[in-house]
Amino acid sequence: MLSKQLQEFIATFEKLPVLGPRQATRLAFKLIREGAPLVKSLIARLEGLLEVKVCTQCFFIHTNDGSLCTICSDPSRIQDVIMVVEKETDVMSIEKTHRFQGRYLVIGELTRSGALEAWQKSRVQLLKQSIQKLPNQKAKEIILALNPTTYGDLNAQLLKKELEEYSDSITRLGRGIPTGGEIEFADIDTLSHSLERRG
Amino acid sequence: MLSKQLQEFIATFEKLPVLGPRQATRLAFKLIREGAPLVKSLIARLEGLLEVKVCTQCFFIHTNDGSLCTICSDPSRIQDVIMVVEKETDVMSIEKTHRFQGRYLVIGELTRSGALEAWQKSRVQLLKQSIQKLPNQKAKEIILALNPTTYGDLNAQLLKKELEEYSDSITRLGRGIPTGGEIEFADIDTLSHSLERRG
Repeated sequence: MLSKQLQEFIATFEKLPVLGPRQATRLAFKLIREGAPLVKSLIARLEGLLEVKVCTQCFFIHTNDGSLCTICSDPSRIQDVIMVVEKETDVMSIEKTHRFQGRYLVIGELTRSGALEAWQKSRVQLLKQSIQKLPNQKAKEIILALNPTTYGDLNAQLLKKELEEYSDSITRLGRGIPTGGEIEFADIDTLSHSLERRG
Repeated sequence: MLSKQLQEFIATFEKLPVLGPRQATRLAFKLIREGAPLVKSLIARLEGLLEVKVCTQCFFIHTNDGSLCTICSDPSRIQDVIMVVEKETDVMSIEKTHRFQGRYLVIGELTRSGALEAWQKSRVQLLKQSIQKLPNQKAKEIILALNPTTYGDLNAQLLKKELEEYSDSITRLGRGIPTGGEIEFADIDTLSHSLERRG
């Protein structure tokens, strides 16, 4: 009934994390209806993505000639202060604050199993190796910028254990009342942290 | 901060009906992480879609040499029984029943404004013209297969008015208790219809 092209399109696109079978089908018909210009612009955008590389040190993205991203290859960034984040978008959020001068490790989304995936272990391994190459063979600080949730806490414990020999200061992001938030609606844990870290 | 390629990807993909800015960003990073083979397969699937055409009579899709879809060009289909559906997937659902031998008009998703869009009017116009070319210059039956909802009812009224000169029998799909449904949970309107159409 459906053309081979459409079936293949749906079979491939429904496996993408943000789509399902229904969305892939809707998208296919939408694209056929809209016609060639839209489809060709999507193809061009995908071809553009092929030029984007992943940094071999921090695993953020870049389009530089070498293997390092713009942050890792910037000599003004502090090499022995390292922030571990889960997602590339977390790097973007932190960079927008202009308050962090160190470098990153994008470790990838952590599971709820309380264990690292094999590829995440190898990223931690690369981090350890890069720390061992530092003048002091230790990082001045490792910030575990994981979400302040139960699973984030669990994974932070896990990473702290992995990395404790590599820095005397393993920290997490400060907790407190978010800007624009109201004390009335803050939970007790948040309020306790905001009290401890007052200033 | 983000490479031009990534920004352009997000700007284009976030406008697709099934995605938003967050999903487009997630998808972009996922594709970069997964690497070239997945991206290239998506490109190939999109290129496949470029071969898919829209039938000039019923607006369903096809990959035939001519301008008509497989249904419209099938001489065994009854030409003067026409089912008006909103979506291409509705054609697929009806075809799966193997109970309909007529042809279709895909009119596109109807708005809640109680009026047809310009391109939908032109599809209705084409339907009228194709009916006028029939031996009797009238369709034996036009089935308005719209959802049995308030808006579906409203739009069915609208289409009935448009098409009343083109067929003496303008019908809708029968309402009743769906297979597997329970009488206990059927609303009064559904139950009334199921009683009227009992058999």
